[in-house]
Amino acid sequence: MAKKNKPFRPKARRPRGFEDRPSDVIRAESALIAKAFAVYDSFGFEPLQTPAFEYADALGKFLPDEDRPNVGVFALQDDDEQWLSLRYDLTAPLARFVAENYDALPKPYRRYQAGSVFRNEKPGPGRFREFTQCDADTVGAGSAVADAEMIMVAAEIARAAGLRDDQYAVRVNNRKLLDGILEASDVPNTEAGAVQRLQVLRAIDKLDRLGEEGVEALLGDGREDESGDYTEGAKLNSAGIKAVLGFTTASDANRETTIATLSGLVGSSDRGKQGVDELAEIDRLLTATGFGPERVSFDTSVVRGLGYYTGPVFELELLAEITDRKGRPVRIGSIGGGGRYDDLVSRFRGQPVPATGFSFGVSRFVSALERMEALQSEAQPPVLITVFDKSLLPEYFKLAAELRASGIRTEVFTGSGNVTKQMKYADRRGVKLAVLIGSEEAQAGQVTLKDLVLGAEMAKAIETNEEWKSARPAQQTVSRENAVAAIREMMADE
Amino acid sequence: MAKKNKPFRPKARRPRGFEDRPSDVIRAESALIAKAFAVYDSFGFEPLQTPAFEYADALGKFLPDEDRPNVGVFALQDDDEQWLSLRYDLTAPLARFVAENYDALPKPYRRYQAGSVFRNEKPGPGRFREFTQCDADTVGAGSAVADAEMIMVAAEIARAAGLRDDQYAVRVNNRKLLDGILEASDVPNTEAGAVQRLQVLRAIDKLDRLGEEGVEALLGDGREDESGDYTEGAKLNSAGIKAVLGFTTASDANRETTIATLSGLVGSSDRGKQGVDELAEIDRLLTATGFGPERVSFDTSVVRGLGYYTGPVFELELLAEITDRKGRPVRIGSIGGGGRYDDLVSRFRGQPVPATGFSFGVSRFVSALERMEALQSEAQPPVLITVFDKSLLPEYFKLAAELRASGIRTEVFTGSGNVTKQMKYADRRGVKLAVLIGSEEAQAGQVTLKDLVLGAEMAKAIETNEEWKSARPAQQTVSRENAVAAIREMMADE
Repeated sequence: MAKKNKPFRPKARRPRGFEDRPSDVIRAESALIAKAFAVYDSFGFEPLQTPAFEYADALGKFLPDEDRPNVGVFALQDDDEQWLSLRYDLTAPLARFVAENYDALPKPYRRYQAGSVFRNEKPGPGRFREFTQCDADTVGAGSAVADAEMIMVAAEIARAAGLRDDQYAVRVNNRKLLDGILEASDVPNTEAGAVQRLQVLRAIDKLDRLGEEGVEALLGDGREDESGDYTEGAKLNSAGIKAVLGFTTASDANRETTIATLSGLVGSSDRGKQGVDELAEIDRLLTATGFGPERVSFDTSVVRGLGYYTGPVFELELLAEITDRKGRPVRIGSIGGGGRYDDLVSRFRGQPVPATGFSFGVSRFVSALERMEALQSEAQPPVLITVFDKSLLPEYFKLAAELRASGIRTEVFTGSGNVTKQMKYADRRGVKLAVLIGSEEAQAGQVTLKDLVLGAEMAKAIETNEEWKSARPAQQTVSRENAVAAIREMMADE
Repeated sequence: MAKKNKPFRPKARRPRGFEDRPSDVIRAESALIAKAFAVYDSFGFEPLQTPAFEYADALGKFLPDEDRPNVGVFALQDDDEQWLSLRYDLTAPLARFVAENYDALPKPYRRYQAGSVFRNEKPGPGRFREFTQCDADTVGAGSAVADAEMIMVAAEIARAAGLRDDQYAVRVNNRKLLDGILEASDVPNTEAGAVQRLQVLRAIDKLDRLGEEGVEALLGDGREDESGDYTEGAKLNSAGIKAVLGFTTASDANRETTIATLSGLVGSSDRGKQGVDELAEIDRLLTATGFGPERVSFDTSVVRGLGYYTGPVFELELLAEITDRKGRPVRIGSIGGGGRYDDLVSRFRGQPVPATGFSFGVSRFVSALERMEALQSEAQPPVLITVFDKSLLPEYFKLAAELRASGIRTEVFTGSGNVTKQMKYADRRGVKLAVLIGSEEAQAGQVTLKDLVLGAEMAKAIETNEEWKSARPAQQTVSRENAVAAIREMMADE
């Protein structure tokens, strides 16, 4: 408490890059999380909550920004001198949890979790240093069956969130395909080929921007851009370049056609063949379960930023053209995704523990849904019982309790100020129905109900103050016994 | 990723003092939070989420352990050299939020919030460094009307959590009463009297342990305990000692009787009279709304640890005698509480902003409810479709989708291992119903359903393996078309 003789006055400032989420956003986010949890539950996943902190060495360094591996994490030293880091995602803590409790857990271990993750980065518009992720993962299942299931989960969440099937698509790729194609072109699938593989991935990622010719240069010797900057190429031979370019254009609306094309491209590479077989298994299960190509497609342009993926990867993309607040079209693109990461738990245990998962950012998904007008989650505004006469407060509280018991949100005005001020408060809160009980009404056993929405509309239509007063628009007086029923009826009309 | 030529293997360890919450605990905690949110909503409160971090100076130092004001908080320096602290409760961040957005907010501003709070303390059994609080607060309402409402909210949450009215009580006190009594005994209600007031509070808090005689000594000159340690007394005069002792025994089961007694004790102190008037107002509203003395009582022994309270304070206490896992009786006591804190927002703004609130620790409340066998929140275990034959996986996935569509949690086994291993998995997951479709069944258009609960019971009764095999207990084969209906029926029987 600020001591009266030392009036230190701190500044009330939200920390840089963090947000205070208002009620409508929270209600929408909670609704989306509840829908996702219901889908996870329906597939038999169970909830888990790990702490916000992990030991820094257990967390590892898997942030997308691999150029600055030490940046991006909030860390502090504990009083026993060990370094604690706030989690930057929910996957690394899951890997720690499974490794620590391996023998006690059923295998496969299938959990879901939503929670804050932290990135110690330069904040930008709509980019916060704390945000909510919502994940499900299957650990200890090595076959593509588990991947197929995660893909279905993603598509089911999109549908549960209120999207039509033409408003989203899950796009699936497999890391093993490109590994295999490169292996067939003498880029080994080991550390030795790591730099070349990364160069190839980056080149493919620029297909939209540079076109086929530009990518071809980046796959070969290199490329000079308009500003004169030179980017070293991946130095593939011409057969390799041709295979990679063929890979980038292999996607067809028909999943089986894509599989056939890919089968030709991977040649004799075992890893490539494995990648094709996994896609074929995924296709077989999707088709049997009714997930057609309009909901889930195979798309070789899907990259996924994280370095730890080892097999099938996928993104949940929103397809509808939507507009921002200024009416300009915005393409949201990917709002979540996932894939197989077989090395993340293994790094603790030194034995293979395959895993696959799905993750989405809650805020990003919700703002897309809002602009697409899906996911209705608005709360009924409360009925406001205004305070005309403080001696009648027990009456007001009694009516409020009756209304709540019949399922109607109700607030007695607890602040200070006359009725004009209370009406201003009602307006700010979005209140639609105000209750007025003055001493006259109380004596007559009556209550006055004011429809503020209708009142505001009629006020626009009525010219003079006299008319207003005599018409008493959108206002009715009912007996105290009938008050709850009358209010319920008026609220239902909205 | 651990590079293959540098096999660094981190240890998988949960950080000291933090917990991984398992699924049954999470389901119970989520259910309790949902119930509390429904109560907050019904009273017209709106959700808010503030970030985990606040600037250290904005957070202030209001932890119960006032002797070590700098200890107890997780803090780190941002890259602009400002100190960030993780919130230790939800009240200090609310004060910052209201002060920062004062003009834009409706007054009173009424919000609820649940979230992790962090205490950088020595961990102990059941005492974690991250835990969930669930709060509601009214800011900008100075009258006891708002306090009465918070008290009702507390009692309603207890009821919503599944407690009977004889299993809990809200106990209410008012800081102004003791302030007034001491004022009347020449202990001024200013900084000058702060040390004496604290000594008096500490003495009262020891009534249970030391009895009236011990407390009398601590209120007077001082007291030597059995070990010879001497505690300096509050040095009240004999009238003051008598008044304070009278205060500690003023509580009566009848709220009006308590008010009358207190009215006599505060004498001519304005602050004391104000405290009595506030209790009288609270009693008037509680009585009108049907909150009788069995749910809410006035109790002068209620202290509340936090230093920032300025008026009415209250605790939600569990009354039932419950037992721990070893069968020993445990009295849970207070699982939440709140009160008026009129200076917390003011310290940012330099103008009065009265406030009052209620807060509870989610884990503590849930473990009490569990031991009292209130709040049922167990999830239906999933149906497990076992994998007999991988070529039939599309069949398994199709049946799973049909079951989910009819509202039944269903999991296809995605791991590796034969049926024995899958049955072990089913057992670990608490699965009650397993589905078996081998190639014979598939060809015959049949599925076999195994009731694992009944099966386990019958297995105990059947002596020999031969009997088991011929009896095929708790297992039935139905046609594929009737599978969903049969499974639904078996699940409903549980």
